[in-house]
Amino acid sequence: MAKNKKESFNDFGLGVKPTSQGYRALNKDGTFNIKKTNIPFFERLSFFHSLVTMKWSHFFGLILIGYFVINLIFATIYIFIGLENLTNTVGLTQFDQFTEAFFFSAQTITTLGYGRVAPIGLIANIAAATESLLGLLSFALATGLLYGRFSKPISKIKYSTKAVIAPYNTINGFMFRVINPQKNQLLEVEVDVSMSIRRENSELRNFHILDLERKKVVFFPSIWTVVHPIDKTSPIYKLTSEDFYQKDIEFIVVLKAFDESSGQIVYSRSSYKASEVAWGEKFIYLAQQENGKVTIDVSRIDESQKTELNT
Amino acid sequence: MAKNKKESFNDFGLGVKPTSQGYRALNKDGTFNIKKTNIPFFERLSFFHSLVTMKWSHFFGLILIGYFVINLIFATIYIFIGLENLTNTVGLTQFDQFTEAFFFSAQTITTLGYGRVAPIGLIANIAAATESLLGLLSFALATGLLYGRFSKPISKIKYSTKAVIAPYNTINGFMFRVINPQKNQLLEVEVDVSMSIRRENSELRNFHILDLERKKVVFFPSIWTVVHPIDKTSPIYKLTSEDFYQKDIEFIVVLKAFDESSGQIVYSRSSYKASEVAWGEKFIYLAQQENGKVTIDVSRIDESQKTELNT
Amino acid sequence: MAKNKKESFNDFGLGVKPTSQGYRALNKDGTFNIKKTNIPFFERLSFFHSLVTMKWSHFFGLILIGYFVINLIFATIYIFIGLENLTNTVGLTQFDQFTEAFFFSAQTITTLGYGRVAPIGLIANIAAATESLLGLLSFALATGLLYGRFSKPISKIKYSTKAVIAPYNTINGFMFRVINPQKNQLLEVEVDVSMSIRRENSELRNFHILDLERKKVVFFPSIWTVVHPIDKTSPIYKLTSEDFYQKDIEFIVVLKAFDESSGQIVYSRSSYKASEVAWGEKFIYLAQQENGKVTIDVSRIDESQKTELNT
Amino acid sequence: MAKNKKESFNDFGLGVKPTSQGYRALNKDGTFNIKKTNIPFFERLSFFHSLVTMKWSHFFGLILIGYFVINLIFATIYIFIGLENLTNTVGLTQFDQFTEAFFFSAQTITTLGYGRVAPIGLIANIAAATESLLGLLSFALATGLLYGRFSKPISKIKYSTKAVIAPYNTINGFMFRVINPQKNQLLEVEVDVSMSIRRENSELRNFHILDLERKKVVFFPSIWTVVHPIDKTSPIYKLTSEDFYQKDIEFIVVLKAFDESSGQIVYSRSSYKASEVAWGEKFIYLAQQENGKVTIDVSRIDESQKTELNT
Repeated sequence: MAKNKKESFNDFGLGVKPTSQGYRALNKDGTFNIKKTNIPFFERLSFFHSLVTMKWSHFFGLILIGYFVINLIFATIYIFIGLENLTNTVGLTQFDQFTEAFFFSAQTITTLGYGRVAPIGLIANIAAATESLLGLLSFALATGLLYGRFSKPISKIKYSTKAVIAPYNTINGFMFRVINPQKNQLLEVEVDVSMSIRRENSELRNFHILDLERKKVVFFPSIWTVVHPIDKTSPIYKLTSEDFYQKDIEFIVVLKAFDESSGQIVYSRSSYKASEVAWGEKFIYLAQQENGKVTIDVSRIDESQKTELNT
Repeated sequence: MAKNKKESFNDFGLGVKPTSQGYRALNKDGTFNIKKTNIPFFERLSFFHSLVTMKWSHFFGLILIGYFVINLIFATIYIFIGLENLTNTVGLTQFDQFTEAFFFSAQTITTLGYGRVAPIGLIANIAAATESLLGLLSFALATGLLYGRFSKPISKIKYSTKAVIAPYNTINGFMFRVINPQKNQLLEVEVDVSMSIRRENSELRNFHILDLERKKVVFFPSIWTVVHPIDKTSPIYKLTSEDFYQKDIEFIVVLKAFDESSGQIVYSRSSYKASEVAWGEKFIYLAQQENGKVTIDVSRIDESQKTELNT
Repeated sequence: MAKNKKESFNDFGLGVKPTSQGYRALNKDGTFNIKKTNIPFFERLSFFHSLVTMKWSHFFGLILIGYFVINLIFATIYIFIGLENLTNTVGLTQFDQFTEAFFFSAQTITTLGYGRVAPIGLIANIAAATESLLGLLSFALATGLLYGRFSKPISKIKYSTKAVIAPYNTINGFMFRVINPQKNQLLEVEVDVSMSIRRENSELRNFHILDLERKKVVFFPSIWTVVHPIDKTSPIYKLTSEDFYQKDIEFIVVLKAFDESSGQIVYSRSSYKASEVAWGEKFIYLAQQENGKVTIDVSRIDESQKTELNT
Repeated sequence: MAKNKKESFNDFGLGVKPTSQGYRALNKDGTFNIKKTNIPFFERLSFFHSLVTMKWSHFFGLILIGYFVINLIFATIYIFIGLENLTNTVGLTQFDQFTEAFFFSAQTITTLGYGRVAPIGLIANIAAATESLLGLLSFALATGLLYGRFSKPISKIKYSTKAVIAPYNTINGFMFRVINPQKNQLLEVEVDVSMSIRRENSELRNFHILDLERKKVVFFPSIWTVVHPIDKTSPIYKLTSEDFYQKDIEFIVVLKAFDESSGQIVYSRSSYKASEVAWGEKFIYLAQQENGKVTIDVSRIDESQKTELNT
């Protein structure tokens, strides 16, 4: 990677051709504007992945529906076997019979087993023994899924909604800010900034990896201003604000960190389009001291002020 | 590794000698054509690993058989103790006695415990208390196994079935394509391509690690064409299609990535033999724009067309 | 990182301005003296993280309270439905009715199900079936939380409470000691030492990353003396003990290791202020041989003796 | 690390002073010959770590004893409360009363709940509800422990019991072999070889990191001969077999790999003392072809034959 760091390259998995003005490769929320089609069903499918990443409301909905359906099925089975094989179910109406069978099933699959209704005879016992095993396994699965959902590494890193072009030493720099709003410590935080730019008189795009003032920090207790110094080697050297629009520039940010609380590596992505870059503004310094503690007002991450650019 | 990157080396754990024409070191599915013999039984054995990697049908079959056998054993124990120590089992035929004992066991090991049949007296109670503890531990194990099976990192990365020799800038390149058909994001994708080649007038083989245009991409939303530029430092410089066959060349691909959804590192392997390399073909560009989204038709990963090679 | 290793930089996420004399950026226990304010509630919130990192006493207290409250709620529901829908609860006083409902709920949510009290009829059965499912899911969650709590990587690495300036070859060095008091092996131990120092005639601070004699050891069976050689390139070259106080120097240590027993990466942090640096002292050698074993007396990690510094 | 790769250094956490002839720093099984004393109790303690690493027989023994003791405690509690608060326990002998209380406890803590014996009244119900919660939590803990025990990364890598000094190209090399006897794939296998050597006319020791022919292999399907070329930069250049004994040399091997089946990084360690180095022998080539598969006879890993050394 080092060797072609400053060269442009043609393909970044994002497609170089389809670059209608204003196309955004990476959405603000870190998802890609890419649709894959004609994937064979079984290659696309990932049972565990879907159950772990779906919304909580869908997850619990699915469990409730599954619980209902499986009890329905076993209720039917018990009625088919005959309720005379379940204790305390003699002489009931058809509706009550179904109710008893349904809740006997529920008491069996959860291994609750009050015992007021209990199976008698070979067939009913086979059904109940099978159902209780099924219940245990389903529940084992649910345990794994819940753990998988909760232990999934989630980074809630916040990006400034705009980037700025501000003075940096004797030159200027492309800058944005990131913040970790949570209590957990992020360590060895590493950032990659790429840029996609339309070629001169062409529909095609080039991709560049940008040099950064610091690519990595060992710890990240509060706020970090990521800086790309616009020196002579920079692909945006000499470009103006109009060029940014005209060349339909997009900055793509990938951030990687070790999340101490979960012991896992987390990633976070965002992007800036030309319209989200403020020229001649600089971010306001946020750290303030209070009772021997540095205080950072997280809600002011976007605050900036006008400034003179170096020329 | 850096220092002998372009040198050949003798051993890659794959064996340099046994190179009958057409021998394939790495199968298409990523398994190696290697058999290890005379391994002491306990060193080979890995209980958890086997249960986690076996087929689902075998896994569930094993659970069912285990459930049946353990209940059989405990049923025998309860009969041996005497059914007068279980409630509601008096005056039954021998078959019914066994049925009662068997399903009492099933109700105990699942901690279902309807209670119609319940143990009385010291011995029967000891057996039941032991069985329920055993049940809980078995179920704890099943929970771990199910989680282990589901959370196992699986990469379904797809390789183009053939590689091509196509023009690359002013020279030619050895190229193949990889695609991630699933929804989960793969990050920091890194690829290693090695090549094994038969030595001149010898049965022995040399191994080379090939230089790549890009060894790593930060993110991998869709498709990636991996390129080995055939410049003067390449071990396949000046070789022809016939040389590929005659020297029984095999390209070995190892791909490593961080799977964002599981938070784990996944590996994938494949290989290309001489017969799977198309000379003078180039891959067709797949990304198409549709409603502001790039669309990739995954099923066309192998599509290529004739082209002139640089000389 | 390599390129600006010896340069000073302005921001390390710790704030450069608020440097009242004696301010400590990193506490001895590895927490940062930083407070983040105005974080939107849902971004700050991390349910699983809180439950995994809270104290054991709070964790169990929460479970007990939760268990009590949920049974209270369901007891109310069962009474609302009417106790005539539970067996064996006829003709009780109001208090006894509540007791029966409460413990029926407890027997249901734990899937205990003695059955002396059991639900009859549609409504009571729906409530009980729902409660038992809720019980199973809560318990699945508790299993995940307990595992999350126990498997959380914890490093108990101990630092010498003071650092020393001692002779090192022909120059002097800044040194401190670290020890792993536990039985588990730490591997690939890597240490980063940064220093924050007040600028000349300014309230602002510079940060420096210090060069170390060894940045990494492959294994770490006992004790390691980390050394920053104070050569001409060192930012503390020519500084005196008084300068340390006057410039309000703070050394920030971040240690990273692979914990073999958990298979996870662990981090540990500490810091040394000017008052915790002993000039002209050297640590006492601790390893002693006994019955063919090297013995290290961990409690003597801080022992040092006066020595002449090189000039 | 790179910069002092070939320099000797004084401390490797292994102690440089206590070097009685024949002292072994690292045992063959990968444990260190180091004893840490005077560690405060709570720093040494690691509850989860102990339960996860203890022998299976001890683990199950502990569970059985715990199950027995907890039931003993609760049996005492139920008797103290009075057995008239448990159904079906009236008019028993004292021994039978205890038996009933004990097994009622067992049926409660496992959430089995047959219900023949069930609690009546406030106090007995409180005890039973508490016990069942305790049972669920203990079982949740057991689930986590079992999973922790099984998913613990274990590498069963085998080392040749002896190392050899054999010809290597035009010079000689220090060589040993490693093999992965299991079915799981090890990837990105990396090896570190250090050497400890007694100083001339001194009791102290120096440590050296040895240069290797290959430090890393991308995949490791079978057998790997690790080679340290004894060129002019080697710390064992010009040394003889007698020097090895007289200087009490020890080679320390640390191997790191990614275990594909568990998705975890595993480490393995071994060492070679002077007496375990065979001079003028070379390992026999093991790979043989059979039905288009390479076959490796793992049991022959130590086989070597006499050879002439280069001079």
